[in-house]
Amino acid sequence: MPLSPEQLAEIDALRAHPQPTLRATVPGMEAHLYKAQPVLDHGFVRVIDYMGDDSAICQAARVSYGKGTKSVQNDEGLIRYLMRHWHSTPFEMCEIKLHVKLPVFVARQWIRHRTANVNEYSARYSILDREFYIPEPDALAAQSVINNQGRGETLQGAEAARVLEILKSDSNRAYDHYEAMILDEGQLGLARELARMNLPANIYTQWYWKVDLHNLFHFLRLRADAHAQYEIRVYADAICEMIKDWVPAAYAAFEDYRMTGAQLSGKGVECLRRMLKGEKVTQETSGMSKGEWREFMSVID
Amino acid sequence: MPLSPEQLAEIDALRAHPQPTLRATVPGMEAHLYKAQPVLDHGFVRVIDYMGDDSAICQAARVSYGKGTKSVQNDEGLIRYLMRHWHSTPFEMCEIKLHVKLPVFVARQWIRHRTANVNEYSARYSILDREFYIPEPDALAAQSVINNQGRGETLQGAEAARVLEILKSDSNRAYDHYEAMILDEGQLGLARELARMNLPANIYTQWYWKVDLHNLFHFLRLRADAHAQYEIRVYADAICEMIKDWVPAAYAAFEDYRMTGAQLSGKGVECLRRMLKGEKVTQETSGMSKGEWREFMSVID
Amino acid sequence: MPLSPEQLAEIDALRAHPQPTLRATVPGMEAHLYKAQPVLDHGFVRVIDYMGDDSAICQAARVSYGKGTKSVQNDEGLIRYLMRHWHSTPFEMCEIKLHVKLPVFVARQWIRHRTANVNEYSARYSILDREFYIPEPDALAAQSVINNQGRGETLQGAEAARVLEILKSDSNRAYDHYEAMILDEGQLGLARELARMNLPANIYTQWYWKVDLHNLFHFLRLRADAHAQYEIRVYADAICEMIKDWVPAAYAAFEDYRMTGAQLSGKGVECLRRMLKGEKVTQETSGMSKGEWREFMSVID
Amino acid sequence: MPLSPEQLAEIDALRAHPQPTLRATVPGMEAHLYKAQPVLDHGFVRVIDYMGDDSAICQAARVSYGKGTKSVQNDEGLIRYLMRHWHSTPFEMCEIKLHVKLPVFVARQWIRHRTANVNEYSARYSILDREFYIPEPDALAAQSVINNQGRGETLQGAEAARVLEILKSDSNRAYDHYEAMILDEGQLGLARELARMNLPANIYTQWYWKVDLHNLFHFLRLRADAHAQYEIRVYADAICEMIKDWVPAAYAAFEDYRMTGAQLSGKGVECLRRMLKGEKVTQETSGMSKGEWREFMSVID
Repeated sequence: MPLSPEQLAEIDALRAHPQPTLRATVPGMEAHLYKAQPVLDHGFVRVIDYMGDDSAICQAARVSYGKGTKSVQNDEGLIRYLMRHWHSTPFEMCEIKLHVKLPVFVARQWIRHRTANVNEYSARYSILDREFYIPEPDALAAQSVINNQGRGETLQGAEAARVLEILKSDSNRAYDHYEAMILDEGQLGLARELARMNLPANIYTQWYWKVDLHNLFHFLRLRADAHAQYEIRVYADAICEMIKDWVPAAYAAFEDYRMTGAQLSGKGVECLRRMLKGEKVTQETSGMSKGEWREFMSVID
Repeated sequence: MPLSPEQLAEIDALRAHPQPTLRATVPGMEAHLYKAQPVLDHGFVRVIDYMGDDSAICQAARVSYGKGTKSVQNDEGLIRYLMRHWHSTPFEMCEIKLHVKLPVFVARQWIRHRTANVNEYSARYSILDREFYIPEPDALAAQSVINNQGRGETLQGAEAARVLEILKSDSNRAYDHYEAMILDEGQLGLARELARMNLPANIYTQWYWKVDLHNLFHFLRLRADAHAQYEIRVYADAICEMIKDWVPAAYAAFEDYRMTGAQLSGKGVECLRRMLKGEKVTQETSGMSKGEWREFMSVID
Repeated sequence: MPLSPEQLAEIDALRAHPQPTLRATVPGMEAHLYKAQPVLDHGFVRVIDYMGDDSAICQAARVSYGKGTKSVQNDEGLIRYLMRHWHSTPFEMCEIKLHVKLPVFVARQWIRHRTANVNEYSARYSILDREFYIPEPDALAAQSVINNQGRGETLQGAEAARVLEILKSDSNRAYDHYEAMILDEGQLGLARELARMNLPANIYTQWYWKVDLHNLFHFLRLRADAHAQYEIRVYADAICEMIKDWVPAAYAAFEDYRMTGAQLSGKGVECLRRMLKGEKVTQETSGMSKGEWREFMSVID
Repeated sequence: MPLSPEQLAEIDALRAHPQPTLRATVPGMEAHLYKAQPVLDHGFVRVIDYMGDDSAICQAARVSYGKGTKSVQNDEGLIRYLMRHWHSTPFEMCEIKLHVKLPVFVARQWIRHRTANVNEYSARYSILDREFYIPEPDALAAQSVINNQGRGETLQGAEAARVLEILKSDSNRAYDHYEAMILDEGQLGLARELARMNLPANIYTQWYWKVDLHNLFHFLRLRADAHAQYEIRVYADAICEMIKDWVPAAYAAFEDYRMTGAQLSGKGVECLRRMLKGEKVTQETSGMSKGEWREFMSVID
């Protein structure tokens, strides 16, 4: 269980005293506030704060004095139009702040999204906890044989057992030694900023992460995608569930235009037109490479 | 008066229905919400939304589960420490959204601050209003004779009158012609995106502007400064008044370390040490240029 | 002609003395360096500097010690793969610096692209030249009757003449008064930072603009597009011509995947699959709005 | 030695064929190009490309057609003025691209500087090398007893030996197991993206990092500072040596105004003025906290 009783008490305290506000408020999001949504074996995502709602997107797009448009239905139409035409700035007018606990190797991918604000737990200043990501057996994937950057079958039997044993024992030994180096018992004790270098990349860290909705959608498009590494995808999936409750119209437009849609090349559009006129097009007559053709066929078939 | 009765009614509607929220809430900021604070002759600044408070800065700095520190006094100490040591990321955890009405030449300076989100009223899509900035007589400054980028004395008498007459009549003529070009009465009417090019830089525009507290402080340091152009400084000053009511501890630290403090060069520090030991230092013996010496003396004298 | 003999002499001086360098160098781009490519009536774009080439994109993608891949053909394949899969960071490893002269209303659109570096000619410090954008007759478009943010037919005869006359005379009067306000002849002279507010948005300004290739492609996708305002599109078109000579493989991939390709929604993909199976799909049975359907049909037809 | 003969041959090939260019070129920087400057036990920094020079800063500040100012001396004066008055945009007109090999825990600090372009070696796609940072004995610092985020004395004798032994043996065991998990010999082999999670934070990674001069100075101010962790400071120091050879005037201004200078608070300025008038000021009469007073005294004494 990722949270201590003391931490749960702090969360309860934050949820105990609603205050009146004149700001845009979303009941569905209030229900999420501060609660930890478990991800992986020790991780979580929890919403700390949010700014704006679907209506705030329209309000900014129109630079209006009051709310955005006259009705929820008009808001939806406008939001779909903005998403379809890549008018990204109105979506930047919504902001969300998350507290995330995640393995270091996931954090290293995540931080590559630069247009966000981050405060990470400092291992120079503080001592990290003994918490490591150990995959579930069905997440123990082999290297893909067709894609250098991906996963293939799941490891079985003795091989799976050996891998799990390595991960567990190496994590624990590394942490034992980390503790032994920083604890002093009559010795000086190595500086924390140095001792942490012995810790493996499956140790958990945590941070506050704040991002606007446009950049969050960009993150989700790449990280909730089938090509993303499973261990970051589960965080993206958990965030998607929250966003649905926060800005349902914007999320629906995002899903239609970004997640379930497709990007075609000029060559792809050309092939499509020929096909729709009844021509039989093959990879050889398409002008595409084999890789492009395979991806194109997966869209239309 | 910058707001129409219809606009005021929209603002009243937004202020009429407080909702319960679990988010960090600041009563002093709630009092500002949606209200237009007048700036210049037709401009205003109004707060549309905010995220976070002083405590949220500490909460992020500590990556904590509950509030930041145990007491308001501890929060203040931590905030001063963060500001003094340029730990900027915790201040990025607060966010504010403003609706600003401002002359185009002010907007052109303002937009140079890139780390912010902006939605501007579209003159491709909509027709601009007939509202121009005409300076008050005491803002009619002459070109500085000692600083190429600054103001000197105030224009007087006939010269002042002539300048005001030019600004008023040219603005109105430009707007008359703008209207004449876009209105069709039996003609096609010039596209709005073209007709707007006839309008001078003192016409008012408006935008939604969203920024985090760290970047807002950077904006205020440069734009609430004595060297900033008066017409943008009055906006920065109006924003300062709101920020005091939002994050009083952070604002106090900003004021002490950024606004009333000073940046010394290595040469300046060296001179200071010599002076404090009783040596008489002059520009000639300081190693500084005349400009640097003048600025140095204005700090210590 | 936009350049004075003195300016041309400065450009010739910069082109007179090639220096040896070990950096990635592109002969096609060297031919462009410093020369002004005319755009509109007084504007131009000229390349001041560039960093990287097609090979540098691959070098960064592979984090290699030497060049990117073994052959130009491999470079092309890798670049197409990166573009297709939205791997944007290798394209950020190329950088270009441009000097652009452009009307203020174009500059105001351009500056909305925030991930770039800009130094603009200062009208607080310096006096602007008497140069205004006056459209060619065939660019005098009427407001579109079907799209609020666009152009329709071209103005003709008396209406066109009247518009041109307004633009010319208002520009000149505004500049006469600008000069009259700042020149002193026995008077103080209004500060430049104030006097400029009388100048209309068709006056020319200029800036140095530096951007990486990924963000430049984003700019070009939006601004070289048919929906962009004509007056910024001609700048984007002129830049496209330069980029072709700089990074031909990256530009070809950009053209195929971004410029001539299409983004389909999930609904669009669904319709397409039904159509390819021989079903007759109409707007009514597509689940799309009329606007979406019209845009969808323009892709496939 | 960090580079293999094959890598050195690739570097020699890049240095073998100077090309003529019309771009701003700096002989002192050409001498650095592609060569690896060793840092720590297996790391390095090497310059891959650069854009601009001291003159380019002035050229952009003046938005000029040719070079920046008439003389090197004028360039220096202008650059000092720009640095003193926080006119940061002209410094953004210079750009540098580095190839850096560095331990992962250093990379994690480094990446927090968001305004830069990065391509990191992919441990999803490729297999990492067996190279770990093992500190020199004099870098084996104890935790500071006065500053939670810092180092104190150096570990000695048995304690030092024990720490080094732990770091070495844990690194090697982790790598042995990493190899064992991914190599298949009759088994599937764990996916690389998973196996890497067993590797500790002292393993070396590498990346291409591209940044403009303004943001590089900001990085250097924080990371070449005495409060930065030693292991990132040595990289910053190595970069400083390169920058001196690239933009000597800008670097000298940076050193004077940012590195050897000091930031005083409003309270600090007030105390200083009292001191210079002969008053004896103590912490008690200064209005500062003990921490602030200690830092203030270290500036002036």
